[in-house]
Amino acid sequence: MEKEQLLMLPGPVPMPERVRYAMMRQAINHRSAEFGAVYADCVRVLKSVFGTANDLFVISGSGTAGMEAAVANFGRDREIACLVNGKFGERLFKISQRYGKAHEVASEWGTPLNLEALEGRLEQGAEVVTLVHNETSAGIKNPAQEVGRLARKHDALFVMDGITSIGGDVVEADSWGVDVAIVGSQKCLAAPAGLAAVSVSSKAWERLCKNPPYYLDLAAYKKSAGGTPMETPYTPAVPLFLALREACLMVEEEGISNRIARHRRMAGAVRAAAGAWGLSLFPTIDGRHEYSNTVTAISYPAGVRDSEMRDIIKKMGIIIAGGQDHLKGKIFRIGSMGAIGAPEILATVAATQYALTKLGYKVQGDGVQAASEVLG
Amino acid sequence: MEKEQLLMLPGPVPMPERVRYAMMRQAINHRSAEFGAVYADCVRVLKSVFGTANDLFVISGSGTAGMEAAVANFGRDREIACLVNGKFGERLFKISQRYGKAHEVASEWGTPLNLEALEGRLEQGAEVVTLVHNETSAGIKNPAQEVGRLARKHDALFVMDGITSIGGDVVEADSWGVDVAIVGSQKCLAAPAGLAAVSVSSKAWERLCKNPPYYLDLAAYKKSAGGTPMETPYTPAVPLFLALREACLMVEEEGISNRIARHRRMAGAVRAAAGAWGLSLFPTIDGRHEYSNTVTAISYPAGVRDSEMRDIIKKMGIIIAGGQDHLKGKIFRIGSMGAIGAPEILATVAATQYALTKLGYKVQGDGVQAASEVLG
Repeated sequence: MEKEQLLMLPGPVPMPERVRYAMMRQAINHRSAEFGAVYADCVRVLKSVFGTANDLFVISGSGTAGMEAAVANFGRDREIACLVNGKFGERLFKISQRYGKAHEVASEWGTPLNLEALEGRLEQGAEVVTLVHNETSAGIKNPAQEVGRLARKHDALFVMDGITSIGGDVVEADSWGVDVAIVGSQKCLAAPAGLAAVSVSSKAWERLCKNPPYYLDLAAYKKSAGGTPMETPYTPAVPLFLALREACLMVEEEGISNRIARHRRMAGAVRAAAGAWGLSLFPTIDGRHEYSNTVTAISYPAGVRDSEMRDIIKKMGIIIAGGQDHLKGKIFRIGSMGAIGAPEILATVAATQYALTKLGYKVQGDGVQAASEVLG
Repeated sequence: MEKEQLLMLPGPVPMPERVRYAMMRQAINHRSAEFGAVYADCVRVLKSVFGTANDLFVISGSGTAGMEAAVANFGRDREIACLVNGKFGERLFKISQRYGKAHEVASEWGTPLNLEALEGRLEQGAEVVTLVHNETSAGIKNPAQEVGRLARKHDALFVMDGITSIGGDVVEADSWGVDVAIVGSQKCLAAPAGLAAVSVSSKAWERLCKNPPYYLDLAAYKKSAGGTPMETPYTPAVPLFLALREACLMVEEEGISNRIARHRRMAGAVRAAAGAWGLSLFPTIDGRHEYSNTVTAISYPAGVRDSEMRDIIKKMGIIIAGGQDHLKGKIFRIGSMGAIGAPEILATVAATQYALTKLGYKVQGDGVQAASEVLG
């Protein structure tokens, strides 16, 4: 068996040993004060990283389960305006189609949201707006605050997928007017995959829909979380909760503002390397949105083939991401989420520079040096 | 922090260290040959313990998610006859009410299924039958084979919750005519909580319903499992899959028939102790169903209070279960699922005997000796 690989993906991400080792404990009773305290620790810290005083629940399922819980509980039979400029926006649209009358408010992947079209939809009576805050498929961060203003102006519910921003970038769910926010465990929180957390505003509770999927029935989560001890309605994935608790305590110990600054520094180092190499970031930013601070998408130079480059890097023990769907072969993506620090970024930048050079691209300057200057 | 407690519950159950330690690995990419091999190992062994050659998928969610996947994909808008003689039968009925026209075919908890009423429902056109094979809330095993015969006779789909029997008792899904069978990870498989596995027959695929919950869309599971590498459609709870793989390999190494024999011996030892004490098992069995081989329910003697007895046992580091809902205070339940062996059974029987005696019940004979004779 080989040594573990370094995952520089937009999730899953490497976990600190403290998080991993928390999982090896013997089974504990999930209907106990002990488990209730674990859950309560997670909720306390997650509320702070969500920027919310609303209810917050942890679901034993992936981020997609969290997205579906949001749409199913608050979008059934409603007019839903789905902002789409990347793969995960599309997923929220697909999920919305199963529950309500979903309208895709689309722009090309990585281009600014079409907020004029959104406003049109809201004027025509859209009751729910969905947005992916940090769209890893396109390397961008969308203007959630602006979307929140529009949703509030038209009294619509605002569902925000913060799966790859919460815990790594600034999120202020309450002041932005987010009614339902979602995070996944294996992204900026650096916990294992398999949990999603969902916050719910009082405005959303007032508009709760009937008949959500049984497993994703947020009213049942609320009832169980309100008991003593605090519980989940169905058996939780206990080892993942134990790991998430440690990950949350580490967020608390680092301090969320320090953590966000670290994420910016890491993404900034990757961007600096790309600039030194003479490569373009994807997409071209026009001021209506920003680059993601948790993943960096870089356009391939002519002549460098995706599979070849990522293979060379993989042979050095590092996994970076290619593009998804129609961006396959056009971009590569370096995740810098969670517990990532200078060693991981330096190794990845160095391996990428080696691979680019080996495949015939003449880098303009030294990306390793440029990244080091950001990190040092 | 105290030493870990011994969980003698009908799930979650103590996990072997090999299973627990598998979880502490660093994150791996779930879109990789390595993860595909983990998933394939789980599926291979689970098919053998299900007794099926059908498709089988692992869902990152609790057993309840597996139950809902079965009902949502094969019961929507259909007439569903739900056999109910305990809490989990009720849950399948509640889930069925969210999707189809559900008819409760009820009998008192722990009493035989009303198969005459089931046949009536089938004659009136029920298209799906749901059954809980091993009903832990009532300590009984239901006659799945007989239900399968009736379902097949009337060309209905047979959904069987084998959450607490599969891996610990005889299940022959294919020869019994089970179209969709479900298991939970934290029961007889002795893996951590948080995964469900679901098998699907070709007859069920032919009758697949539209518009299941996105997260529980079994057609998406089938598509992803059929690729190279084998994958799940959404991010799986990787540490739980790693643990389940070890648990499955341990099932394979023990051999399923040895494992079933061990489960029978463990439950038999608990039943022998109850008999020696002069206590009645719950319920009274009349030949139309059997006692569970994975959990034993025992009626409290007059004067012994549930909370007092379980507190005494808990102070000795052992957690047993009380009754649920209207059986609260009337019965106690000792789980003997998974990796449980003689040490755990002996400790539990001894602690229970001590507690019964301390609370004023005069045991007729020595339960520890009776259990030892079964185990020795």
